[in-house]
Amino acid sequence: IFPVVLSGLCVLLLGPTLGSGGRILVAPVDGSHWINMEILLRKLHARGHNITVLRSTKSWYIPSDSSFYTSINVTMLEDQTDKSYYNKLLLDVIECRRSGQFLRSFCQQHLITSMFNKGHKILANSASAMLDNLKFMKKLRDAKFDLMLTDPALTIGLILGSYLKLPMVFNVRWINTGESHFTMAPSPVSYVPVPNSELHDRMDFLGRFKNMLLYLHSVVEQHLIINPAYSELFQKHFPPGTDLLSLQLAADIWLVRVDFVFEFPRPTMPNMVYIGGFQCQEAQPLPAELEAFMRSSGEHGVVVMSLGTIVSALPREVTEAMASAFAELPQKVVWKFVGEKPSSLGNNTMLTKWMPQNDILGHPKTRAFVAHGGTNGMYEAIYHGVPVLGLPLLFDQFDNLHRLKIRGAARVVEAKSLTKEDFLLALKDVLENPSYRSNIKHLSRLHRDQLTSPMDTAVFWTEYVIRNKGAAHLRAAGFTLPWYTYHSLDVAAVATAVIGACVWVVVFICRVLYRRMSRRKAKSD
Amino acid sequence: IFPVVLSGLCVLLLGPTLGSGGRILVAPVDGSHWINMEILLRKLHARGHNITVLRSTKSWYIPSDSSFYTSINVTMLEDQTDKSYYNKLLLDVIECRRSGQFLRSFCQQHLITSMFNKGHKILANSASAMLDNLKFMKKLRDAKFDLMLTDPALTIGLILGSYLKLPMVFNVRWINTGESHFTMAPSPVSYVPVPNSELHDRMDFLGRFKNMLLYLHSVVEQHLIINPAYSELFQKHFPPGTDLLSLQLAADIWLVRVDFVFEFPRPTMPNMVYIGGFQCQEAQPLPAELEAFMRSSGEHGVVVMSLGTIVSALPREVTEAMASAFAELPQKVVWKFVGEKPSSLGNNTMLTKWMPQNDILGHPKTRAFVAHGGTNGMYEAIYHGVPVLGLPLLFDQFDNLHRLKIRGAARVVEAKSLTKEDFLLALKDVLENPSYRSNIKHLSRLHRDQLTSPMDTAVFWTEYVIRNKGAAHLRAAGFTLPWYTYHSLDVAAVATAVIGACVWVVVFICRVLYRRMSRRKAKSD
Repeated sequence: IFPVVLSGLCVLLLGPTLGSGGRILVAPVDGSHWINMEILLRKLHARGHNITVLRSTKSWYIPSDSSFYTSINVTMLEDQTDKSYYNKLLLDVIECRRSGQFLRSFCQQHLITSMFNKGHKILANSASAMLDNLKFMKKLRDAKFDLMLTDPALTIGLILGSYLKLPMVFNVRWINTGESHFTMAPSPVSYVPVPNSELHDRMDFLGRFKNMLLYLHSVVEQHLIINPAYSELFQKHFPPGTDLLSLQLAADIWLVRVDFVFEFPRPTMPNMVYIGGFQCQEAQPLPAELEAFMRSSGEHGVVVMSLGTIVSALPREVTEAMASAFAELPQKVVWKFVGEKPSSLGNNTMLTKWMPQNDILGHPKTRAFVAHGGTNGMYEAIYHGVPVLGLPLLFDQFDNLHRLKIRGAARVVEAKSLTKEDFLLALKDVLENPSYRSNIKHLSRLHRDQLTSPMDTAVFWTEYVIRNKGAAHLRAAGFTLPWYTYHSLDVAAVATAVIGACVWVVVFICRVLYRRMSRRKAKSD
Repeated sequence: IFPVVLSGLCVLLLGPTLGSGGRILVAPVDGSHWINMEILLRKLHARGHNITVLRSTKSWYIPSDSSFYTSINVTMLEDQTDKSYYNKLLLDVIECRRSGQFLRSFCQQHLITSMFNKGHKILANSASAMLDNLKFMKKLRDAKFDLMLTDPALTIGLILGSYLKLPMVFNVRWINTGESHFTMAPSPVSYVPVPNSELHDRMDFLGRFKNMLLYLHSVVEQHLIINPAYSELFQKHFPPGTDLLSLQLAADIWLVRVDFVFEFPRPTMPNMVYIGGFQCQEAQPLPAELEAFMRSSGEHGVVVMSLGTIVSALPREVTEAMASAFAELPQKVVWKFVGEKPSSLGNNTMLTKWMPQNDILGHPKTRAFVAHGGTNGMYEAIYHGVPVLGLPLLFDQFDNLHRLKIRGAARVVEAKSLTKEDFLLALKDVLENPSYRSNIKHLSRLHRDQLTSPMDTAVFWTEYVIRNKGAAHLRAAGFTLPWYTYHSLDVAAVATAVIGACVWVVVFICRVLYRRMSRRKAKSD
């Protein structure tokens, strides 16, 4: 009875950027985080803003020369962390996955804690070196930036922007020990799964117990591992009482890479703005060779496989199992692959070092997406309505695929025990059982049914902060309270003391009166 | 350096409503609530929706015949509550205001509790009568509505919509014992002022203590006054365990008449959408007579005065004090006035029974707005950037004006002790001190700096719920948990018990071992 096409007709015309644009200093995070940040920067550049990107000389993906930004080389995480680190981490995670459902989250969390222990020390040293470099700081000050735009998964941008007292916008999904909301918004652990818990928002008692333990673990991690790494830096360069949390809570706008079509609904804050899937767009034509391969698949279509940007080498037996399973499909397969070619590779499978992932997922011949469960890929699968066979490897990928599985839009296999038979069975299920496709098409319709596109939202709020020199009026007053005041424990304590004192006084008076009366009675007897 | 005009250039084109529109059942609240609901209904009608309004035959403002809706007469609050009730209530509130700052909120809250005690019984009876009327219910069912759109400040629409299992959208600001957020979102009382507290979001200890007491009062009120009024109704017509709260939490979208430019920022939920000030629009030309009066004010301009829709009679001495103060102004005055003409009225003052409030506030000659602090008027003052002299009378008006005062955009006087001198002093301050105007202009710029207009937002989400037959995916899972589970008290209790048992076992074993060793030692000695 009602037009489903309505939102497709919503056209938003952001006004043109008159006069000179803003001067935006950007501290991005390398890897997949850069992929979506880059798309936002292109858009901001096209709207007339002047963009300066901080990068490492050893950056994995961030080029020094670009048509849409100027870059400044600084020392960052990449100078001391090789990408091969993640291949090693993957083997440890696979080991964790051999534990039971309850324990493996703690095992994986322990690996992340070790990573944080190393990483935050490197970050604190890099940030210190920058703040101590007076010439560098003068150069940044003289540039008179209007905004620090950063992904706070790493802390350089946060510290630098705060030190320079710049208005701050986060392009964020992960921060410190968890998903961004846990830093900002009340997060009842009774129904908000802690990151890496692989829990539902409807948990049984054991689930809630596990969630509480993981939450307490993250609190301890924050105080014993992360905060100490920065204490010297804050003592030297910031007012007393400053810590990572106080800087994060002072950010003006959080552009959060979340859409509740995908994530579990939970409390939020007025300065959190949702841009989940903002990097997705209608598919552009594919390169000629790839297009020809897609077309050659006929009625059966194509399976697309990618494991993202971080992990380059799967264990050999996993690769072989997948290759031989692919060989038995009537579909063709496009596989983003780095490393030694699997011996069992079929004629139907094309290996490629790079693919235009958004465009190939939006191609009409694409039937399924074999994916590691990174956030970018999940939103692209939802946007284009392609069912997913998940092979989670690291970090949030387990949670991401778990959410899609709960919604009936994905099936998940584990790298720890992958056989050709299991993989083929799961893949055929995703390809042949129509429920996966219809469920992800439903998510796709909901995800696209927005008043404004997530990209327009991101651009609007970034410019809002430049235009209004911040957004302090959207920041909750509770952020500046000590934890015991925030939770009204001081009020409760005083109230209890006052009530206690009153009770004591009443009891005391009664006892005195009783004794006197007893004595009188004794006398009169 | 950056164009402030940008957001003014944002043009949103909501798609046309193709085919037949939705069938919307509306249960509005009379008085000022109807004023803004009516504007939304006009818009929805213009987009092709079919609107049916439930109203009382004794309605104060809701006409039975309309070009944009069909009405159905039912028994509602107005059948048993005369508008003059609020004039009496005003006198009691003025009495409360004579108490100190700490006590008066409790005094006023007590008056509201009495009102609830009476009102909710009437509402429960009306709702019961409707549900028992099989013919009436059949008529509603046969109409095959797609949506219940209601203002849940009163409960008829909520109960009826839930009973008919209709998707539900709230046009809401107040619900049961408080502001809508308190029902839905985590609300730390350490920085979120409870309604009618007249507190800041930055409170001292005494403020937080008062806030906690008022919060506990509202919880008691909900359980002892409001819930019991409906228990029979729910037992008879709804599944076991249903209460007002469970129905409210099941609503699909809450269009909340809030903008954080005006309200204090605080936690929120994904299905709360902000439409504060959605009824405001650019000023339309005034009626000729009024326009001539406005122009005749010359450089001094005009003071606009209105006390809203509910209270019609101020105490005589207050009216006279104001009239004589107005008479001494160089400005002209337009006064929305009902009742006996004040004897001290000056030549510069025009009394009028009705005024196009939005249009007159947007008139270039308007210099100040003397207002009671109702929400509609406050947003109109902000939208048009007119400084306010507040004379709060009832309900949320004290809180509303308090917020505007904190932001330096209003001055507030009290009806309990108003003299001509005080009123004139305050009025001259608002007219002559440029800070009020510049502060409210600042709020106005921020309020207008939105990606989409609040009205487009309201229309989009209303149609979203029709289109998607609800918005269950935006509803948090925590809403269905019992309170002790929600707060993880069961997990904490079991954890404490397990730890306690472990400690007890360890202590027990140690004691047994110690005794045995003591005995052996005694033997061996």
